[in-house]
Amino acid sequence: MLEGEQSNEKRKRISCGLYDSCPVSLKTAIQSAFEYGFHFIVTQLSHPSYIQDLKGPYVPYIIGRSDRVLTGNEWNRLIVGELSTSIDVDNEDAVVSKTSKQKLEQELGFASHLGVPAILIHLTKPKNVQLSRVINDKLVSNFSYAVWVQIPMVHESQYKSTTDIKYDSWNFWNDFRIHCDYDKRVGVVLELPDVQHVPPCDEIDRWVGEPVKALVIQASYFLTNQYGKPVLPKVHQEIIKRFMALDVQYIIHLDVEGDYSFYVKYMTYLGKKLYCCDTMAEFVQGCEDYLQNPLQPLSEHLEMNVYEVFEKDRVKYDTYQKAVHKALELWTEKRPPVVMVVGAGRGPLVQAVLNVSRILDIEVKVYAVEKNPYAVNTLAHRVMSEWGLQVTLVKEDMRTWQAPESADILVSELLGSFGDNELSPECLDGAQRFLTPKTGISIPCQYTSFLAPLQSLKIYNEIRNGRLPDKTLKQCLETPYVVHLANYQQLAPAQPLFTFDHPNYSEDGPDNTRYKSLKFPPVAKSCVLTAFVGFFETNLFDDVTLSTNPKTHTPDMVSWFPIVFPLAAPVQIHAGEIITVSFWRDENVEKVWYEWCLESPYKLPIMNPNGRSYFLKKH
Amino acid sequence: MLEGEQSNEKRKRISCGLYDSCPVSLKTAIQSAFEYGFHFIVTQLSHPSYIQDLKGPYVPYIIGRSDRVLTGNEWNRLIVGELSTSIDVDNEDAVVSKTSKQKLEQELGFASHLGVPAILIHLTKPKNVQLSRVINDKLVSNFSYAVWVQIPMVHESQYKSTTDIKYDSWNFWNDFRIHCDYDKRVGVVLELPDVQHVPPCDEIDRWVGEPVKALVIQASYFLTNQYGKPVLPKVHQEIIKRFMALDVQYIIHLDVEGDYSFYVKYMTYLGKKLYCCDTMAEFVQGCEDYLQNPLQPLSEHLEMNVYEVFEKDRVKYDTYQKAVHKALELWTEKRPPVVMVVGAGRGPLVQAVLNVSRILDIEVKVYAVEKNPYAVNTLAHRVMSEWGLQVTLVKEDMRTWQAPESADILVSELLGSFGDNELSPECLDGAQRFLTPKTGISIPCQYTSFLAPLQSLKIYNEIRNGRLPDKTLKQCLETPYVVHLANYQQLAPAQPLFTFDHPNYSEDGPDNTRYKSLKFPPVAKSCVLTAFVGFFETNLFDDVTLSTNPKTHTPDMVSWFPIVFPLAAPVQIHAGEIITVSFWRDENVEKVWYEWCLESPYKLPIMNPNGRSYFLKKH
Repeated sequence: MLEGEQSNEKRKRISCGLYDSCPVSLKTAIQSAFEYGFHFIVTQLSHPSYIQDLKGPYVPYIIGRSDRVLTGNEWNRLIVGELSTSIDVDNEDAVVSKTSKQKLEQELGFASHLGVPAILIHLTKPKNVQLSRVINDKLVSNFSYAVWVQIPMVHESQYKSTTDIKYDSWNFWNDFRIHCDYDKRVGVVLELPDVQHVPPCDEIDRWVGEPVKALVIQASYFLTNQYGKPVLPKVHQEIIKRFMALDVQYIIHLDVEGDYSFYVKYMTYLGKKLYCCDTMAEFVQGCEDYLQNPLQPLSEHLEMNVYEVFEKDRVKYDTYQKAVHKALELWTEKRPPVVMVVGAGRGPLVQAVLNVSRILDIEVKVYAVEKNPYAVNTLAHRVMSEWGLQVTLVKEDMRTWQAPESADILVSELLGSFGDNELSPECLDGAQRFLTPKTGISIPCQYTSFLAPLQSLKIYNEIRNGRLPDKTLKQCLETPYVVHLANYQQLAPAQPLFTFDHPNYSEDGPDNTRYKSLKFPPVAKSCVLTAFVGFFETNLFDDVTLSTNPKTHTPDMVSWFPIVFPLAAPVQIHAGEIITVSFWRDENVEKVWYEWCLESPYKLPIMNPNGRSYFLKKH
Repeated sequence: MLEGEQSNEKRKRISCGLYDSCPVSLKTAIQSAFEYGFHFIVTQLSHPSYIQDLKGPYVPYIIGRSDRVLTGNEWNRLIVGELSTSIDVDNEDAVVSKTSKQKLEQELGFASHLGVPAILIHLTKPKNVQLSRVINDKLVSNFSYAVWVQIPMVHESQYKSTTDIKYDSWNFWNDFRIHCDYDKRVGVVLELPDVQHVPPCDEIDRWVGEPVKALVIQASYFLTNQYGKPVLPKVHQEIIKRFMALDVQYIIHLDVEGDYSFYVKYMTYLGKKLYCCDTMAEFVQGCEDYLQNPLQPLSEHLEMNVYEVFEKDRVKYDTYQKAVHKALELWTEKRPPVVMVVGAGRGPLVQAVLNVSRILDIEVKVYAVEKNPYAVNTLAHRVMSEWGLQVTLVKEDMRTWQAPESADILVSELLGSFGDNELSPECLDGAQRFLTPKTGISIPCQYTSFLAPLQSLKIYNEIRNGRLPDKTLKQCLETPYVVHLANYQQLAPAQPLFTFDHPNYSEDGPDNTRYKSLKFPPVAKSCVLTAFVGFFETNLFDDVTLSTNPKTHTPDMVSWFPIVFPLAAPVQIHAGEIITVSFWRDENVEKVWYEWCLESPYKLPIMNPNGRSYFLKKH
């Protein structure tokens, strides 16, 4: 069921399902859906119409269709089982509730018997606590199917003048999934609103932060284009484009007659038309919401594939080269400038400096300082075969190396996703001993971390479910992760946190500990705060900058993913409430670490005290 | 590196590597190996020849080739890194040992830097304890590569008359992997012996029980056939056929000149020629050494796909039909015989009985008794659409059902992999209330479990590494698993354990508790006992039988995989030692369970006391 088409073309694979509540023959219904190009069917497993015409002594034994109408493989790949819409476990009438529960238990058991990959439940009322209990019991008993919760993107009470209470359908969903402890097997199926009732952008943003599994599209939403073919209105296309990054599937409700094969063709066409394929999109493919542990380059040698990934980012090294170019253009002395690349890796910045030397046609004395012996092996080969004696190779830690002369320019790329989180401040403070006093330049000369509140239950679940055997869940939840966010909502624009300048000739020696409290504007809509997300902006030299902050992101730069600092558990935030966070950077002789805590709307325990769960080793 | 060709043809995918210790250019070597059809290369990462001609100040920084000669992806897929053969960490000379250790650490670090999928180490001497410590330290630190330990299948001391001590190279391997705690990332690479020194069958058997990753084949072993093409001698083909089930790869040593492309072509041809593709082989594809928890059909409803898998076994149901046929042939009374299928599932045995009724042209009154409401749903559909009123459908547990008349024949298929382990005895004892006294027949009428000692580190590791979050490792290791064994050695022929007869009219009521001690013949060669493996034989009726015991296995029957009862840890068994095991079947009002323990050559604690880790629920 989860398979769309595959191809090398640049487009999103599209998987379309057909809603067919009660076909006469399921086998025939599937065959004809396939002919129309659909990949799966949503249908009721236990519909009264199956048995209404049956006769004989064994009719009471009939629950639904015979499981033999399809093979196990077909049930398992092609059928999403919709629960009977008559089920109403939360009815105030105790008899209705009890009967509903029996029917629900039977249908859930039957779904499990058939091995369908997902069941579909409608939430039509604000209160679903009894329903969520039954489902949660099954989730905990490891039933094998996913649970798809269908709700309208916009509740009809929002635009019906006859209703007093305006419901936000997000609350139906949010209450239900909280009761189910945010289980990752519970997803949302969103009914696309008609063109008159498309919600504002921030409401779509909130949904994009949810585990949306499918969008339900009414066939009647389609317009007819000049060739007589069905097309979706622009506003619907815009919504679909937003959800495409989440790999949602599409369920078509055939509420009008027509040539059904066009719908799938059209959705497949949208997969090509709306697919955003910039450098970033290509680079990050497959890393969506995948947790990476931040590097520890001071205590562990980076491996070849890490260097290789770094080096792929042309934008980053072109920008560095521009910064070096601007710095060397200003060189006025007779002697050749001494440029030291500290943390040279496999040499991309050495190459950038040599490029500038060639372009400006000035002689430059280059040092390549690197402590990783395996990267030094590569550098040695490059000196011998490419660079020659213009480059002096040094196998040393920049913090302890006794340089034979002073550097006019120090070039480094020690920044992590949070700027200072790979100990760039400590390394460059150590290296500035051999920077020419007063005139010496550090590239970068400044960087600032940025922080924003984040809703991503996806990341919360990735941390919970993917935890390492040598860490407790508590430890995993107070460790930051580097991650390309896909299924998330940033709850406010990022604010600047900590700034570091290089060189740093403060009187008492450099102090790289920091504290700051950030207060974000009131949230517009209810949401769930699960973490804070970090970025950075850096000034390399003069006006040459790099940024990973979404508001100022360097176009097409792919080197850094955001860094996520989790909270111990999701926090419900109501519309109008203000998120305040305290953040620390602290250190001792061995390590540097962060601590953080929520201050408002609720006080929460401080995360990672003494760096107990996460820290950066200095050695 | 691990990819051979793919196709729908019935054959084994073959992956061939080329051994090339120190090519001038690795890039060229790979390209030419590819042209010959090879899939990967085994080469030294750090060979003195790389640097012997280099000059310049940075030569001391050179460890090996520049990592830039290949992409990270190429290093990661195509290169197995052989460690320098000069490394001798276990040398008695402390200086040699220390220097070797430094070199070894450097090469292992370099292998990690490059990201090669596997390193290859030669074990040439009996003592490798220091080497194993260094490797084990890396394994525990989660280095990413696999460790391939290369040894000759037959140590040359075995056939060289000049040596006093005859070494068994299996001991080199066994000692090494024990020190590495049987880590699953440590595998064997076996050098194929020349045609004069092929070991006896039992020695090959022992190797087939080991994690053999590759076979090394000397090009000089190939003969030239009548068309001038290289072929391997029959004895080598026989060995290769044995290892093919383990998905081993092949490493060709080009010790003679020739057209290299023929070797891969020939091995690919062998993949087709030697591939054993009977019903069983097809059925089990993909389940090799995969652990399944035994079913609990009394306390949990079986799911549709389980029934579907059962029903695929034509041999089993044909044999049942034969038994029913023989029983009904003997029917002499005027009234139609009453046949009750107890645990009817989705009806395959009901169908078998109806087939016999049609073939013999006698009227039969059939009851289908089933307690799973979802299977009953299927049966109801079949009664209504296929079978009609000849079949009476009963939704009851056979142990409590009040039958309206007595049965002349009870047909059931309640046997698990160990015969009685799905509580067939308890169910049939419960059902015999409604069997006609004296003349009533139970099909099956008898079954016996069988037990044999097993070496399978693969299964031991699967249990260790795949353990469930809700069970401790200790609990996982005293739980039986149903598994299609592939990488194993059965250490002795299976012996009969517990027998059950039906109907069972013993005076004090049926007693299904059992105890027996089994003593196996002395083992011929040193080995590692990791578990006991169980099978069963059953007599359905008259001379109609089914068996999963390898010695008497019903041809082409695929319904049951063996059941494995693990030991808490692998036990070293020396040649000539005798394995004795005690085995219990016990019960209380709620459950039935097994306990087992090793009695010789070592006493070990009794596994699963009181059924604490594994039991069969009666309800």
